[in-house]
Amino acid sequence: MSRWQPNARGRLEQAALELYSERGFDQTTVAEIAERAGLTERTFFRHFADKREVLFWGQSALLDTLVKTVADAPDPAAPIDAVVAGLEAAAGLLQERRPQARQRQAVIAANAGLQERELIKLATLASATADALRRRGVKDPAASLTAEAGVAVFKVAFERWIDKANDSDLRQLIRESLEELKAVTRGA
Amino acid sequence: MSRWQPNARGRLEQAALELYSERGFDQTTVAEIAERAGLTERTFFRHFADKREVLFWGQSALLDTLVKTVADAPDPAAPIDAVVAGLEAAAGLLQERRPQARQRQAVIAANAGLQERELIKLATLASATADALRRRGVKDPAASLTAEAGVAVFKVAFERWIDKANDSDLRQLIRESLEELKAVTRGA
Repeated sequence: MSRWQPNARGRLEQAALELYSERGFDQTTVAEIAERAGLTERTFFRHFADKREVLFWGQSALLDTLVKTVADAPDPAAPIDAVVAGLEAAAGLLQERRPQARQRQAVIAANAGLQERELIKLATLASATADALRRRGVKDPAASLTAEAGVAVFKVAFERWIDKANDSDLRQLIRESLEELKAVTRGA
Repeated sequence: MSRWQPNARGRLEQAALELYSERGFDQTTVAEIAERAGLTERTFFRHFADKREVLFWGQSALLDTLVKTVADAPDPAAPIDAVVAGLEAAAGLLQERRPQARQRQAVIAANAGLQERELIKLATLASATADALRRRGVKDPAASLTAEAGVAVFKVAFERWIDKANDSDLRQLIRESLEELKAVTRGA
C-alpha cells in the first residue's frame, strides 16, 4: 500500500505552517494540508494525531531533554546551573529549526486557543523541572522558584531568538537572559 | 420585584465553592448554586456572568491594583521594587479571603479547564506588568524578565499562603520568595 514518501513529515509540517499562516489555524483542514504537501490524509495521520500536533509535537522531546539534563547534572551543580544546562540542551533541539519556530510563533500569536496550549506547555516544563530538582534533593520553595526562573529565562530568550532582528544563538540568549534576571532581581 | 438580599454575592460565592468542592465544577449548575444560597438564578446572574466567574471575578481588581502600583512607584524605584510593591498591594486585596482562596484552589486543582484559565490569568498579570514597566521607561528584556520574575515570586508565595500548614502573611511570603529567587539565581 504505502510507497516511500521522502520527508513526508517535513513536507506536511511545512504545508501546515504555510496554510495556518495564510488562512489561520481554525480555517485549515487536514485534507488541505495533505493536498498542499502532495500527500494523502492517511499519510498525515501516520505522522500527526491532529492538526494541532503539528505545532506541539516537539514538546515531549524538549521536556525529556530538559528533565534528563537536570537529573544528570554533576552532584555539586547549583540548582540554577542544572536548570540552565537543561535549557541549553533543549535549545540544541531547536537550533536548526529557527525558520519553523518563527512561522509557528506567528500562527500561535494569532489564535487564543493555541496561546493557551503554549502556556500549558510552559507550565508543564516548569512543573517537570521542579520535580527533577526535588529528586536531586532541592527543597521547596527553592525547587519551584528555580524552575519558574528557568522557564522565565527560556521564554524571554526564545522570544528574542525568534525576533527577525536577532541572529544570536539561542544558548547565548539563554545565558544573557539569566544574567539579566540576576541583575533585575538584585534591584538598584 | 427584587427585595433586598443581605450579602447575596457572598452567599452565592460560598454556595458555589461548597458545591464545586463536593461535586466538581462541571457537575454543578447555577440553579443548584442559587438553591443552596437560598436565592434565585436571576439573583445569581445579577452578580456573576456565569459559574466560572465566581472563581475569577477578583482577577481584574488584582490586575488593576498591580498595574496602578507599578505605575505610581516613585521615580527612582528599581523595576523589581516597583513590581514587588504592586504584588504587595494586590496581596492586600486577598488578605481577608484566605479560606475562600484555599477552597478555590482545591476546585481549580481538580479541573483541567480551570487550571488553564488560571495559567492565562497569571500570563495576563505578567504581560500587563511588563507593559506597565515599559511605560516607566524600562527596556526589554529587563521589562519582561522583571515581570516574569514578579509573577513567579507571587505564584510561589501564593501557593505557600494557601498551604494549610502555613499561617504567614502573604506580603511576608512575597518578600521571602523574592529573597529566595535572588539566592537561587545567584547560584552556588
